[in-house]
Amino acid sequence: MVFLPNLRLIIAYDGTTFAGFQKQKNTGLTIQGILEEKLHKIVKEPVKVIGAGRTDAGVHALGQVVNFTSSWKAPVEKIPQILNNSLPPEIRVVCAEEVPEDFHARYWAKKKQYNYYLYFGPPSPFYERYAWALPKRLSLDRVQKALEYLTGTHDFTGFSAVSSSGKNPFKTMYKAVYQEEGERGFFTFVADSFLYKMARKLTGTLVEIGLGKEEPELIIEILNSKDRNLAGKTAPARGLFLMKVFY
Amino acid sequence: MVFLPNLRLIIAYDGTTFAGFQKQKNTGLTIQGILEEKLHKIVKEPVKVIGAGRTDAGVHALGQVVNFTSSWKAPVEKIPQILNNSLPPEIRVVCAEEVPEDFHARYWAKKKQYNYYLYFGPPSPFYERYAWALPKRLSLDRVQKALEYLTGTHDFTGFSAVSSSGKNPFKTMYKAVYQEEGERGFFTFVADSFLYKMARKLTGTLVEIGLGKEEPELIIEILNSKDRNLAGKTAPARGLFLMKVFY
Repeated sequence: MVFLPNLRLIIAYDGTTFAGFQKQKNTGLTIQGILEEKLHKIVKEPVKVIGAGRTDAGVHALGQVVNFTSSWKAPVEKIPQILNNSLPPEIRVVCAEEVPEDFHARYWAKKKQYNYYLYFGPPSPFYERYAWALPKRLSLDRVQKALEYLTGTHDFTGFSAVSSSGKNPFKTMYKAVYQEEGERGFFTFVADSFLYKMARKLTGTLVEIGLGKEEPELIIEILNSKDRNLAGKTAPARGLFLMKVFY
Repeated sequence: MVFLPNLRLIIAYDGTTFAGFQKQKNTGLTIQGILEEKLHKIVKEPVKVIGAGRTDAGVHALGQVVNFTSSWKAPVEKIPQILNNSLPPEIRVVCAEEVPEDFHARYWAKKKQYNYYLYFGPPSPFYERYAWALPKRLSLDRVQKALEYLTGTHDFTGFSAVSSSGKNPFKTMYKAVYQEEGERGFFTFVADSFLYKMARKLTGTLVEIGLGKEEPELIIEILNSKDRNLAGKTAPARGLFLMKVFY
């Protein structure tokens, strides 16, 4: 049996105008859909693209990982440029490499890093496209306390959308930190995997705690009760970035 | 005679999807056109918006200045929020203030600052939207030498588009510098005013000099000969930002 080359790409995208990563019927343009369409045209055969994470509509990526097998014969170092010439400017291939034939972008992923950006500055068409604009800064002490409750292995059901049902709700949060840089603040979440809308529900809750509307101990209450109604509102998609997938 | 209040706004916009600042017939959406339309709806009377600079299609602004007279009775400190609620997210009002009745955003402008951003990093949907991506960095020595020839008062005809004809081609360049910050580089140009496409033609020429394709003395040759054919190609609109207007 002969295996076709298995290619792994790191891709970055501005998710603003897309209906998310995963191809779906009857929705707008998706990252997966566009990649498969362009690859089909280049390789002259249907290509199935596997993504590490199914980012939602409006969510961005700096380090999404995809893989696909095909009989494409191009030298691997030329693949980013060839694909970038046919992809829209909102999607860029950062690098490409050949990987073992059994590599699978989703199954092989060990950890993922999402960052969520907040913006506290004056009105800006640039920052607001890529962040959640808030009228005031967060209390660092309160946020710090809440983040400490998040690290470790927990049942994150209370921080997930209902459609996560059926998946293993126990996730290990390796890192949950908050930093400020000038007029921006950002959360970094590193976990083995994330439930549906988990990063945005965590952010929504942490922002309420940071603004003094809720206590840091709300995190413990949500983790223990698994009650989805206790979490803060889901933070808007535009502030969320899939930063890195660890293998 | 009673004068209507004259309001000055500082506005920022992501020019990517617009046909430039100035309202025109039979083109796409313009910043001026959208501002006038939204103001008309809010104030219930036609409003004529005057802009300090007529940025081209695709050019961005962090500090464009506009003014308009109207019978709008809203407290001036609430005007940014009221307008931002009706403007698209690509256009943001940063601040508003009442100014003397004879203030005119264009005629009163003493100097303008444009920045032009270059990008040298890996493919990125975020940076490339707001910069000119180049395959290698510029030689700082060569650029520095060329910039020194630009400061002072010169006939800038050679760095202008033909449609500038008829305007005073003598401009005073108060500041022309180049800086690098990580994977980005940027030119800062401060002049009393700019001819049509001047900032982008200067950048195109400086980039050719910085990449070693032309000598720094080409600047002197273009200034002296006023020959438009000697200048480098016009740099793409997406890297140019109107940063500030000085009064």
